[in-house]
Amino acid sequence: MTRPTITLLTDFGARDPSAGILHGVIAALAPEARIIDISHEVRKFAIRDGALLLWCALPYMPIGFHVGVVDPGVGTARRPIAIAARRGDVLIGPDNGLLMAAADRLGGIDAGWVLESLEYRLPDVSSSFHGRDIFAPAAAHLANGVEPGSLGPALDPVSLVKSPIADPIVEHGLLRSSSIYVDTFGNVKLTGLRQDLEAALGPLNSGDPLQLGLEATDGASSNPLAVTWRSTFGEVRPGELLLYEDSYGRLCLARNMGNAAQSLALVEDRPMTIRRA
Amino acid sequence: MTRPTITLLTDFGARDPSAGILHGVIAALAPEARIIDISHEVRKFAIRDGALLLWCALPYMPIGFHVGVVDPGVGTARRPIAIAARRGDVLIGPDNGLLMAAADRLGGIDAGWVLESLEYRLPDVSSSFHGRDIFAPAAAHLANGVEPGSLGPALDPVSLVKSPIADPIVEHGLLRSSSIYVDTFGNVKLTGLRQDLEAALGPLNSGDPLQLGLEATDGASSNPLAVTWRSTFGEVRPGELLLYEDSYGRLCLARNMGNAAQSLALVEDRPMTIRRA
Amino acid sequence: MTRPTITLLTDFGARDPSAGILHGVIAALAPEARIIDISHEVRKFAIRDGALLLWCALPYMPIGFHVGVVDPGVGTARRPIAIAARRGDVLIGPDNGLLMAAADRLGGIDAGWVLESLEYRLPDVSSSFHGRDIFAPAAAHLANGVEPGSLGPALDPVSLVKSPIADPIVEHGLLRSSSIYVDTFGNVKLTGLRQDLEAALGPLNSGDPLQLGLEATDGASSNPLAVTWRSTFGEVRPGELLLYEDSYGRLCLARNMGNAAQSLALVEDRPMTIRRA
Repeated sequence: MTRPTITLLTDFGARDPSAGILHGVIAALAPEARIIDISHEVRKFAIRDGALLLWCALPYMPIGFHVGVVDPGVGTARRPIAIAARRGDVLIGPDNGLLMAAADRLGGIDAGWVLESLEYRLPDVSSSFHGRDIFAPAAAHLANGVEPGSLGPALDPVSLVKSPIADPIVEHGLLRSSSIYVDTFGNVKLTGLRQDLEAALGPLNSGDPLQLGLEATDGASSNPLAVTWRSTFGEVRPGELLLYEDSYGRLCLARNMGNAAQSLALVEDRPMTIRRA
Repeated sequence: MTRPTITLLTDFGARDPSAGILHGVIAALAPEARIIDISHEVRKFAIRDGALLLWCALPYMPIGFHVGVVDPGVGTARRPIAIAARRGDVLIGPDNGLLMAAADRLGGIDAGWVLESLEYRLPDVSSSFHGRDIFAPAAAHLANGVEPGSLGPALDPVSLVKSPIADPIVEHGLLRSSSIYVDTFGNVKLTGLRQDLEAALGPLNSGDPLQLGLEATDGASSNPLAVTWRSTFGEVRPGELLLYEDSYGRLCLARNMGNAAQSLALVEDRPMTIRRA
Repeated sequence: MTRPTITLLTDFGARDPSAGILHGVIAALAPEARIIDISHEVRKFAIRDGALLLWCALPYMPIGFHVGVVDPGVGTARRPIAIAARRGDVLIGPDNGLLMAAADRLGGIDAGWVLESLEYRLPDVSSSFHGRDIFAPAAAHLANGVEPGSLGPALDPVSLVKSPIADPIVEHGLLRSSSIYVDTFGNVKLTGLRQDLEAALGPLNSGDPLQLGLEATDGASSNPLAVTWRSTFGEVRPGELLLYEDSYGRLCLARNMGNAAQSLALVEDRPMTIRRA
């Protein structure tokens, strides 16, 4: 018998004790569960960042119970939920879109519940720390074999808040994308996968020259940047700008051995176009 | 049989390998123990920060062995100690006040010992890394069932260095408090609990208008700030300043969806008064 | 039976999900393995930093399987390797020098292999995340009892990229060293151990006055700094500069209760000389 797995992703930060407290709550309720920290350094309140990191990480996690807490609406009417994904996982967190892309990547949503049963919460529920009082206990009880349907009433998946991750727009010979995440190496993840770019530009081969159009903040376009499609960093000179399929299948802009975001002054939500040079 | 739990809180930082080394030392000595990291990013040498975080976290941890290392006096005559709390836990660390508030919250101190037995230290004890050489091994041996009394001579609890967390001063219609911790969201924790403020001002209801007097650095008082007592963030407009009972029962100043500390230029140890508006 | 141990050291950063993904991959393949994080905050691409931290940490880890990923050459021809150390450990990572000092400290290298067997990689190997696709799976399979020789062809240890950690130069009455790592306290680790300094200057006693010559960036020497050899911080006034043997046996420059690196504007790779005053 394999131990059940609970994963955690939050914006609690490493300095505060909140992430450790989730571990403590789970250890007390479900001592047999294995806990894996995906990240506790998600940018504060950045639901889309958390959604993207869950989308990246969950396919590599054992089938299990996945708690996501990026929850600017804690203490409001937003619903605390659990949703079952077709792969066999249950995702737990606030109904604010955070869990949707990952659930989709695990096969789509089978069913969902609102976490209303007092029995499966901590005895005292604070107004500002539902990770500790509602979400971690729910995951622990699920790991102990409690049926998700015991956690509260079923919800209609159609009523769930949608994913905050936009799709790119595929045109003939042109992909309209934007920057959505700058990783700790300064690589810039874009909306869209390799297949989206190939739908716009046809099959891509390493070395294909491309043009990247960055829309300026005043809406005007600046001169397009030359960037090369590459299949590995190994083909690229240090300092060269490249567009590649990152290790999750997503379009990503990088500077070999450098920091693409910094050198291009690229922040998130910058619209851009990609076409062949 | 549940596995024994060892928790860790230090100011070692995530970049250096010191926290990982505590895990290694414990894993080698007590392979069955579960280890929970509360935080390794406590501000360097900030004993009070560490004390507060332990006070927050330990009630949510399984009964176990809790190592705290914020230890500016390492290599001096300060005593390495273990103290038994009434709940059934043993707290381990330097005798510098770090463990006192948490021990109190776990029911108070039953007994204490000085960690002098060479048998339960690593063979070589460095002058600068007692976490590795004394504290983690003590916790591991305790987790293995060694009696705390074997770790060294008993100490008189009265001789222990006192907690660095001050109490607020309750006056008629006025609470004298101060800022003691700024969390990673920019929320500012104050000395005192909700019950202290109610002892000064009477019962509080969400929406009660309050006045916050911030003493200027030159001792002069600036104009008092208007702040509202709130029971949940959900009642508050984005950007509004609120005073609330945080999820640990402590008084806390926040700006909804914002950073209270930054916007008020609030650092720690800023004296303040709270009264009804 | 003790569970097998896998340790992880990377430059992936705590914000991105990469370190958590290594945990997930290992948990799925080797559910019985214990995983210890040494650090995921190694400075990006800083092979020598990673090498030094592994050298510090591995002696305190249970004998096991140690994954190191600081891998600026991912996607190039650099070899993915496993090397067996005499203590009984296997170190896994890129062939770029990262693992060499630690392997040496664990008794030296017995044998090595190139991780070429497709059977012990993930089914899809990306060009940029070999930690997930090659190194973590190799460690998991080793933890499951797979023979290292099954992971790929043997390599000649002589062919391995050498350690990036330089040795100091011992002269008569003079040690030529340099700064190689600034820890999170601002303490500056130097090339060389206490025994190297004693080979140059004779036996050291706490309180011995020394001269530290810092070479300026233009090659000129500035006035030498007075620094005292100390065996513990406890003998030193707050703010005093000291040279001491750190808890790993390495020469280290510190300012008691302060930040030596900041106050001396010391960065890495600054050449320095140490002699008696």
